Amino acid sequence: MRTVFWEDNQLKMIDQRILPSRFEIVSFKDHKSVARAIKDMVVRGAPAIGAAAAFGLALAAYESVATSSRELLEDLQTASNTLKAARPTAVNLVWALDRAMGATKTKEERSADELRQLILDEAQCIADEDVEINKRMAEHGAALINDGDTVIHHCNTGALATVDWGTALGVIRTAHEQGKRIHVLVDETRPRLQGARLTAWELDQYGIPYEIISDNMSGYFLKAGKAQKVLFGADRVAANGDVANKIGTYMLSLAAYDNGVPAYSVVPTSTVDLSLEHGGLIPIEERDPEEVLGIQFHGERVAPIEAEARNIAFDITPHRLITGIVTENGVVYPPFEVNLRKAVLRK
Amino acid sequence: MRTVFWEDNQLKMIDQRILPSRFEIVSFKDHKSVARAIKDMVVRGAPAIGAAAAFGLALAAYESVATSSRELLEDLQTASNTLKAARPTAVNLVWALDRAMGATKTKEERSADELRQLILDEAQCIADEDVEINKRMAEHGAALINDGDTVIHHCNTGALATVDWGTALGVIRTAHEQGKRIHVLVDETRPRLQGARLTAWELDQYGIPYEIISDNMSGYFLKAGKAQKVLFGADRVAANGDVANKIGTYMLSLAAYDNGVPAYSVVPTSTVDLSLEHGGLIPIEERDPEEVLGIQFHGERVAPIEAEARNIAFDITPHRLITGIVTENGVVYPPFEVNLRKAVLRK
Repeated sequence: MRTVFWEDNQLKMIDQRILPSRFEIVSFKDHKSVARAIKDMVVRGAPAIGAAAAFGLALAAYESVATSSRELLEDLQTASNTLKAARPTAVNLVWALDRAMGATKTKEERSADELRQLILDEAQCIADEDVEINKRMAEHGAALINDGDTVIHHCNTGALATVDWGTALGVIRTAHEQGKRIHVLVDETRPRLQGARLTAWELDQYGIPYEIISDNMSGYFLKAGKAQKVLFGADRVAANGDVANKIGTYMLSLAAYDNGVPAYSVVPTSTVDLSLEHGGLIPIEERDPEEVLGIQFHGERVAPIEAEARNIAFDITPHRLITGIVTENGVVYPPFEVNLRKAVLRK
Repeated sequence: MRTVFWEDNQLKMIDQRILPSRFEIVSFKDHKSVARAIKDMVVRGAPAIGAAAAFGLALAAYESVATSSRELLEDLQTASNTLKAARPTAVNLVWALDRAMGATKTKEERSADELRQLILDEAQCIADEDVEINKRMAEHGAALINDGDTVIHHCNTGALATVDWGTALGVIRTAHEQGKRIHVLVDETRPRLQGARLTAWELDQYGIPYEIISDNMSGYFLKAGKAQKVLFGADRVAANGDVANKIGTYMLSLAAYDNGVPAYSVVPTSTVDLSLEHGGLIPIEERDPEEVLGIQFHGERVAPIEAEARNIAFDITPHRLITGIVTENGVVYPPFEVNLRKAVLRK
């Protein structure tokens, strides 16, 4: 089953807020609910957000009562802006929407209804391609994993973060299917706990052995020589190889680097933003402090009721800490400034 | 009010497991319950554990039905071993028990009852000295803090981690009382959340402004130039300046170092273990995985029910990442191998 799919003229998605307690599919009939679902993290993970947004644009096309293609395109532009504003960091959101909008730029004049179909077809194409691209990435990445490796993995980058299969977790999955014995140390990934909730749930499905650790423990395992690889995805990669990814990736990569353990970011080339020279230019989302404050232990709220908090959702890992960037076009090594551009433009 | 104190022939302690939801004092009449309370973290923080254990030994002295001093010393030795076994990493536990036992080694022969009183007096002396030592440390440390500093603080090192006043948090408290404007970024400190629960609660009492962050966010603030100092305590410091402290200290120190932000460990000299050449020789406690797995979000358990976890309680921060070690005898700078010994032996 896919995380994001089109069925009965609706966008359907696995509700990732309630896993692993409950598995539910939610349906969407209008683009504004899709934007809200992206913001609320019903769906998360850069590639999954991209596909969801493209289908959201298709919903907007059918919502619009426009009869002329000009009117429809105006409505689509508004809808695209709404969807783009849902979350700022993952570039796949912008990429997928621009690509879906681009499908309407045809040589011949098209009717409004023809454009509606074009948008939906493009969204479906983005979704289908995502799965195929993930499997190619996973093949390239799996070649880096040795039999017996313990891999530290941050956040969730599996089937749930994509349309299907996954990026970094897809690499682990493919290596596992190749018969390599892998043990995963799953960063719980505060504050939203995508590791403890979603990655653990996925690894259970695939029968891959794992142990959950709190994020601040990965340094211990790296220093003790108990982890051979560090893998994560990315929400946006700058032209120089700086990686914006889930908060904690910078500290994890730093600990990997300090102990000579290779750290790989696994991303489709749609996550690479060649328009940004370096990571400092990537917008970083700050979310509701309640995500930090609201956890309970022994049934009681942890923080004092009047406490304040900060909730930075992403950080930038400087490219000097990244061993390689695994894309569907192969593994990219330094100098990233040169090699990343080549990988992105190779089709 | 002290965190650990003797009253009505009992050891009384603030129950730190239930703060900040409830404030309760628990009483102990026998040394085995004290050992259990240390293990269960009713009391935690290296100096507080030391004082609690010394009072625990006093309880053991009064529990013993021995009439001869020889029999009593045998009972005390057994009790000391039980207390020492409660937690392995903090050296103050061993230090305080050895010091209390040392008080029985007098020139003249003493009766069993005289020895009982000597042990209790020594425990009281350890507790009183702890407060005085903390205030001296705090004075030395406060000189390092500038008006307007944002300080990242890990775990809890305040009045609750000591008999009173605190080590690293004591420094912040003294700087605040000196009129310096300080903002504290409080690492929540997974898995037991001593930062979000205890440090936040203490800062509320003192009126010092703070924001809670998840541990993996500190790298972001350091890289963004939004924190000027990093402060933490220690559970044991090796002769070369390697610091065993709450899990996450290594990654935090690494991020401070990577961004040129000074990181200080604030410890009484009783936390320095000159018998261990380097940090690799310090025993590291691993605790119940349920401390990692058992948190809830929106009232639901976070991790899959069958998930496994690791729960490493401490890590070693290599001395190369430590700017200075603040003790009651002044701030110690590299080379720690030479200067730490001097500071410890200076009385």
